[in-house]
Amino acid sequence: MIQFTKNTIQDLPKINRLNLINSCTGYKSANLIGTKSKDGKTNVAIFSSITHLGSDPALLGFILRPATVPRNSYSNLKETGCFTVNHVTEEIITQAHQTSAAYDYGVSEFDITGLNEVYYDGIYEPFVANSPVQILCKYVSEYVIKENNCIHILASIEKIFCNEDLITKDNWLQLEKGNVVTINGLDGYCLPKLLDRFEYARPNTKTKSMLKNGAQKS
Amino acid sequence: MIQFTKNTIQDLPKINRLNLINSCTGYKSANLIGTKSKDGKTNVAIFSSITHLGSDPALLGFILRPATVPRNSYSNLKETGCFTVNHVTEEIITQAHQTSAAYDYGVSEFDITGLNEVYYDGIYEPFVANSPVQILCKYVSEYVIKENNCIHILASIEKIFCNEDLITKDNWLQLEKGNVVTINGLDGYCLPKLLDRFEYARPNTKTKSMLKNGAQKS
Repeated sequence: MIQFTKNTIQDLPKINRLNLINSCTGYKSANLIGTKSKDGKTNVAIFSSITHLGSDPALLGFILRPATVPRNSYSNLKETGCFTVNHVTEEIITQAHQTSAAYDYGVSEFDITGLNEVYYDGIYEPFVANSPVQILCKYVSEYVIKENNCIHILASIEKIFCNEDLITKDNWLQLEKGNVVTINGLDGYCLPKLLDRFEYARPNTKTKSMLKNGAQKS
Repeated sequence: MIQFTKNTIQDLPKINRLNLINSCTGYKSANLIGTKSKDGKTNVAIFSSITHLGSDPALLGFILRPATVPRNSYSNLKETGCFTVNHVTEEIITQAHQTSAAYDYGVSEFDITGLNEVYYDGIYEPFVANSPVQILCKYVSEYVIKENNCIHILASIEKIFCNEDLITKDNWLQLEKGNVVTINGLDGYCLPKLLDRFEYARPNTKTKSMLKNGAQKS
């Protein structure tokens, strides 16, 4: 095993340190956050920090870095109170990655990258067309992480639009059926395949696969 | 597209709601957190919420639910100030999932599940043997999420032990080379394969793959 100490990490060239620390926590979610300012400017940006926070009420969170690109997303979602979360699929990884470029305010990444907007009745914010899982979220609160001035945004899940093929009988979304990707570090895009799904674990009970009884079939 | 509204989500049977909300945010990291109490009792538990929080200083965070199993992890890491993060590989998904069972305090999941402890010189906390990425973390602070009483734990990355095969020239850890898995929902374990890795995105510059120039080779 190679060992990196706090000092060797600190002494790495900046890009190397970013690569190491961004990849050492494991695979990350790959989502496009869609927003629209009050005056109608759309914005879409990739995030890899969206995390489940609770199911009742249904909450998610994500991390916003203080000085980086997706501040348009932040100002828009604060203006309208809502944003959309759209899963990235194998087919759009190039366009999704390009949304991380530092475009000037007022430039819509939808126009630039070739990602398409789609709208649902009664919802102001844009979704990403053909994304197999699309979520409408409402801003709830934010926690400033004082250690590095990042902002942890909390939002409630208001609506979920999902491709029927992904939904199993027990309402699990089988992401591989939508070619949903995961992110390795800052810039690696990976396609997962399901190995197994297990029943709820209990002490003194053998870990049991669910796949044999067809629970993953929709 | 199937639509779930806030009301239909609320009205789902509990397990179905847990499945839907836990899987709708995308793929999650799969990590085993290792701890040891002051009186020498070890503990290992699976977490899917570990998220990169910053690279300078190197910080990560994870979410602790108020009333669930891995409270032993919390009391141990508060006692000693440290814990370990170990990536879950394809080979140990069954054992890793079994650590989520509600064992009595004092029962070590290492003894029960067949996962093996490994120790490094000068470090009190146990690592999971054969995990290709193992991180020593130091507790920094915690933020109580008042909306649902979850705790967002912040920790600094003190040391990283990594299988040499995963490390590229630019210090990116190519997780697929260690058979690292990702989690879909509460109970689905998936193995990702790298599709592509892209250069830093800039406006008016075509998204460019890194794989053609061998940057992913170690």
